[in-house]
Amino acid sequence: MASFFKSIRRVEFCETDMAGIVHFANFYRWMEQCEHEFFRSLGLSIVGHLQDGTAIGWPRVSCQCRFESPAQYEDVLDVLLTVQRIGVKSLTYDIAFTNNGRSIARGTLKTVCCIMNPGQPLVSLQIPDEYRSKLDEYSRSATFA
Amino acid sequence: MASFFKSIRRVEFCETDMAGIVHFANFYRWMEQCEHEFFRSLGLSIVGHLQDGTAIGWPRVSCQCRFESPAQYEDVLDVLLTVQRIGVKSLTYDIAFTNNGRSIARGTLKTVCCIMNPGQPLVSLQIPDEYRSKLDEYSRSATFA
Amino acid sequence: MASFFKSIRRVEFCETDMAGIVHFANFYRWMEQCEHEFFRSLGLSIVGHLQDGTAIGWPRVSCQCRFESPAQYEDVLDVLLTVQRIGVKSLTYDIAFTNNGRSIARGTLKTVCCIMNPGQPLVSLQIPDEYRSKLDEYSRSATFA
Amino acid sequence: MASFFKSIRRVEFCETDMAGIVHFANFYRWMEQCEHEFFRSLGLSIVGHLQDGTAIGWPRVSCQCRFESPAQYEDVLDVLLTVQRIGVKSLTYDIAFTNNGRSIARGTLKTVCCIMNPGQPLVSLQIPDEYRSKLDEYSRSATFA
Repeated sequence: MASFFKSIRRVEFCETDMAGIVHFANFYRWMEQCEHEFFRSLGLSIVGHLQDGTAIGWPRVSCQCRFESPAQYEDVLDVLLTVQRIGVKSLTYDIAFTNNGRSIARGTLKTVCCIMNPGQPLVSLQIPDEYRSKLDEYSRSATFA
Repeated sequence: MASFFKSIRRVEFCETDMAGIVHFANFYRWMEQCEHEFFRSLGLSIVGHLQDGTAIGWPRVSCQCRFESPAQYEDVLDVLLTVQRIGVKSLTYDIAFTNNGRSIARGTLKTVCCIMNPGQPLVSLQIPDEYRSKLDEYSRSATFA
Repeated sequence: MASFFKSIRRVEFCETDMAGIVHFANFYRWMEQCEHEFFRSLGLSIVGHLQDGTAIGWPRVSCQCRFESPAQYEDVLDVLLTVQRIGVKSLTYDIAFTNNGRSIARGTLKTVCCIMNPGQPLVSLQIPDEYRSKLDEYSRSATFA
Repeated sequence: MASFFKSIRRVEFCETDMAGIVHFANFYRWMEQCEHEFFRSLGLSIVGHLQDGTAIGWPRVSCQCRFESPAQYEDVLDVLLTVQRIGVKSLTYDIAFTNNGRSIARGTLKTVCCIMNPGQPLVSLQIPDEYRSKLDEYSRSATFA
């Protein structure tokens, strides 16, 4: 059963710090990058437009990560994303990082669908149908795969 | 009553993203930088040595942040750090970002004191006396200030 | 004679890499941040608007840096910016990093004044008068200070 | 004739800035990451050890980049690395970024082989035989391919 979206990334030199391990702030970027790959895998983009041209984005509501063992330069990490919840306006992901089966880190990312007009306040909106239908289809196939 | 450590930072251009606002991953770096300033204010460094030369560090156990309103280029943010808990081996901080009184983001950072020998696994240890005494002194003065 | 703009920055932990020194890519961000501080010191912003509302920006044409000795965590760097050339449309800066008189790095940054309409190609333009007059005034005072 | 090493990368959201395009400092990280991929393709690592255990690294001497047209979120860039010069102690690379044939940026990176003992000054050394032989072999095959 493949109930998750899987991505792979190799630790870059510039992502390490003087302690010789990955600097923790990189995990938050990696969580987001996995979310964006997941969107692309559904034929969506995190930077989208409705049919009437309205710009749609997904600002972060919250993001947390727990660090379980260090990762090092050139380690190849498996990044496993699970859609934890599809809300009316928000999406919540669980994202786990492992290296050869060893748990590296695990986090949660919550985003909210918003109208993104440059220079204007963000306005949340219900997840548009074209996004929801693809997310629902993914959820069904993931659950019964 | 000044029960917190206060730091200030101006949003840099490279910290924004194409949505025109601060990219969320920067807040985790800023939380850490405020922690490090706090250590310096106590005469400590996050990269320290015991009297016998053992290298001491403070790897992150977990870090979360909730984003309440966007920050923009050249905004000047107040960063308020509160020591939430001094454990046997760990420290937990609450960190709040505001801009002219408006809440921007709020997070929690938990670190653990470790022996950092290059190329060897991290080994947690009780917070050494020279750190604990300064942290305790800070806590007392903060509480009764 | 103070023929330069001076800025100061302390090396952050997240700016080091596993070699125990500052990762070189940070110097390019720091050059830009010094340029932006310089603009602010003149009452300008790198993200500006003409009186008719046209958005003005300064995309980078080229940037180079030569690394002379390593910088480390918590080093306090002097960053010295000199305006090397005020062209018709472009500005060229020389930027030197030192630590207690020791040369750390030295670079050159060339930018070009452009109209920045979102979603449209960048269009270069002559440096507008309100920018040029402040840059000229700075150059004169710098030269004869 | 394939006289270069080719790598591919997709622009990430966090690599854009409020101008809606890739922030220039990312190109320096990408140049380095391409160098590291090139080393891996030769069975080498930028973080290496001689047979006697001496730690070998390749600190940057200088790096420059010229920006020719902007890249945007989700653009897929071809990164082409050419070894421009194999010196006694140094390596110089030419690196070009294109997107669908359009030139995005072009830079030069010069590195020097050094003994990297933690906490001690960097000491340059002649490129060790095991590196040189692989680099020479690559150069020959690249030239006559």
